Amino acid sequence: MCEKCRENRERIVTGTSMQRATLAQIAETAGVSVSTVSKVLNGRDDVSRDTRAKVDSALRRHRYVRRGASLDPAVRTVDLVMSGLDGSWPASVASGMEAAAYEARVHVSIHVARSARSAPHAAGGTAGQDWVDRVLERGSEGVVLGLVEPASGQLARLRQADVPCVVIDPLSDPPPDVVSVGTTNWAGAYEATSHLLQRGHRRIALVTGPPDHLYARARTAGYHSAMAAAGLGPAPELIRNGTYDRASGAEQVRALLALPEPPTALFICSDHMAIGGYEAVSEAGLRVPEDISVVGFDDLPEARWVSPALTTVRQPLKEMGGSALRTLVRLLNGDELETPRIELATTLVVRDSTAPLR
Amino acid sequence: MCEKCRENRERIVTGTSMQRATLAQIAETAGVSVSTVSKVLNGRDDVSRDTRAKVDSALRRHRYVRRGASLDPAVRTVDLVMSGLDGSWPASVASGMEAAAYEARVHVSIHVARSARSAPHAAGGTAGQDWVDRVLERGSEGVVLGLVEPASGQLARLRQADVPCVVIDPLSDPPPDVVSVGTTNWAGAYEATSHLLQRGHRRIALVTGPPDHLYARARTAGYHSAMAAAGLGPAPELIRNGTYDRASGAEQVRALLALPEPPTALFICSDHMAIGGYEAVSEAGLRVPEDISVVGFDDLPEARWVSPALTTVRQPLKEMGGSALRTLVRLLNGDELETPRIELATTLVVRDSTAPLR
Repeated sequence: MCEKCRENRERIVTGTSMQRATLAQIAETAGVSVSTVSKVLNGRDDVSRDTRAKVDSALRRHRYVRRGASLDPAVRTVDLVMSGLDGSWPASVASGMEAAAYEARVHVSIHVARSARSAPHAAGGTAGQDWVDRVLERGSEGVVLGLVEPASGQLARLRQADVPCVVIDPLSDPPPDVVSVGTTNWAGAYEATSHLLQRGHRRIALVTGPPDHLYARARTAGYHSAMAAAGLGPAPELIRNGTYDRASGAEQVRALLALPEPPTALFICSDHMAIGGYEAVSEAGLRVPEDISVVGFDDLPEARWVSPALTTVRQPLKEMGGSALRTLVRLLNGDELETPRIELATTLVVRDSTAPLR
Repeated sequence: MCEKCRENRERIVTGTSMQRATLAQIAETAGVSVSTVSKVLNGRDDVSRDTRAKVDSALRRHRYVRRGASLDPAVRTVDLVMSGLDGSWPASVASGMEAAAYEARVHVSIHVARSARSAPHAAGGTAGQDWVDRVLERGSEGVVLGLVEPASGQLARLRQADVPCVVIDPLSDPPPDVVSVGTTNWAGAYEATSHLLQRGHRRIALVTGPPDHLYARARTAGYHSAMAAAGLGPAPELIRNGTYDRASGAEQVRALLALPEPPTALFICSDHMAIGGYEAVSEAGLRVPEDISVVGFDDLPEARWVSPALTTVRQPLKEMGGSALRTLVRLLNGDELETPRIELATTLVVRDSTAPLR
């Protein structure tokens, strides 16, 4: 074996690459022989404590990543990119995805989708990196996007790098080659509206999401279908668009309660907006559910914290995270998928915020 | 360059390792030449769409991980291991850690600390892997533990693999060489208790955590110090231990309200226990804060969802996550730390659950 061969072999066996320090450089820094460095790396115990400390320090100084013994090439690392990590929604999705990843022996790296423009400009940091830069720089093996709308250029970059992508709750119709996982938004909204109709309500208002959001459109359609099935035509003044947050829920419900003929029930398409709705109802001197019934959407933990506990449409967020991971693994294995769109069932959770019409 | 050299060089340049498929194997599977595989890997556009598809499929079949162009050796991946990922506490810690990691150009992989015993036994899965197996199998560069008590054997394995570790909110005194990040639990409890004393309360009960938890002991001590400063000796019947969850909070407050001389104020050492306490107060036909004042600890989002909004001691969870990441990076860089224990300040957030003694 020639000199170059030996050096290359050393790099491969120890898991270092061209850009990383060689064992010789580390030995030089530590003031020991290459074979001593090798002994430390291989966990041999015939090295004194002092020498080991010197080598460890040199390894750290060279940012040497020990990969040999512990790195198993069967272990994959995929990326979960979400619009934010705070709150119950991302926590549930991440929790479900991690559990499925544990089963599949995949590691999950987490990221917030920052736009290149909004990125901070820290010295030596990652100024201007968008999430695609970030996942590609490590050599991502696959990406799950949660409430993140990928730009076509971002999808093209992932495609070019042969990185498969699964989208949870796409905001708009994803391209045909992008796999998505969602819930039965239409059916969930249909069931929520039917629940209110069955309790005698007829003047049922809808607070939905932004009109361009795919899942907001599906929920709106579910509401209209249930109303139509009960022989009720559309009442445009009862339909409002919010932005899924508490403040917008309060604002829209205030407007609904100010109508000449206010609704007797509210179907509000997110738990956070529904909690805002509670505030507006309380401000108006009314009570939930005695004066007005409220149904939410999501079933986040906060739906149980509020008083009265919120009747809501449960999205199986953990299962969605798990399903996204399993789908990604199938794509990585080159398996065929039956369908590029997976919809997991919602369920109506009846609590204390809905009552028969008085 | 000899034949072996060329092969090795190819492996290094393309980022494959000994265990991975060679370009020749991939070429054979795809039925194309090695140079064609190379062209596809290097993103050249002089390859037909059909050929590219064949090569892509072969790359996937061999689980070939493309690392060449995109993998930057300066990018580190560290592990965040928590007792669970559900809920606001882990979400806040993960969010703060991810933001700091973005700045430092570090990737964060998330894990739930499962014990080897409790691990599921899925076929081909990770049956029996504990978190140390899991972080070492990928070649972790550093670990942050959140509400996870590392066993001495686990710490020894990390030490042997030269993987530094930072513990957030250690449950017991960590060994001197383990760095920890926490909050000023004593000072936070002192301030909460003083707030109630200043409002005229004297019979102030404490619902703290398990007596063996380091931070529960610090909070208990803060309560006792504030009471002593007001000239009030210990009243053992007013001190109760819960387990940080809602049900235990309700249970302990029920017991306190059943005392011959019940307290007029409750300092409850977690927001979730405080919310359970609200239930017990309501069951007893009493009102917060008119009949009894309540202070929590954590300032999770749910402290603002409940009614009345909870006065609580804010733990800077995001900052704790960020601080843990930055500390880990310093350890990776071989920097000296001033202290192995970092405590971030708590702040009392006064909302609507506390009132002057009537």
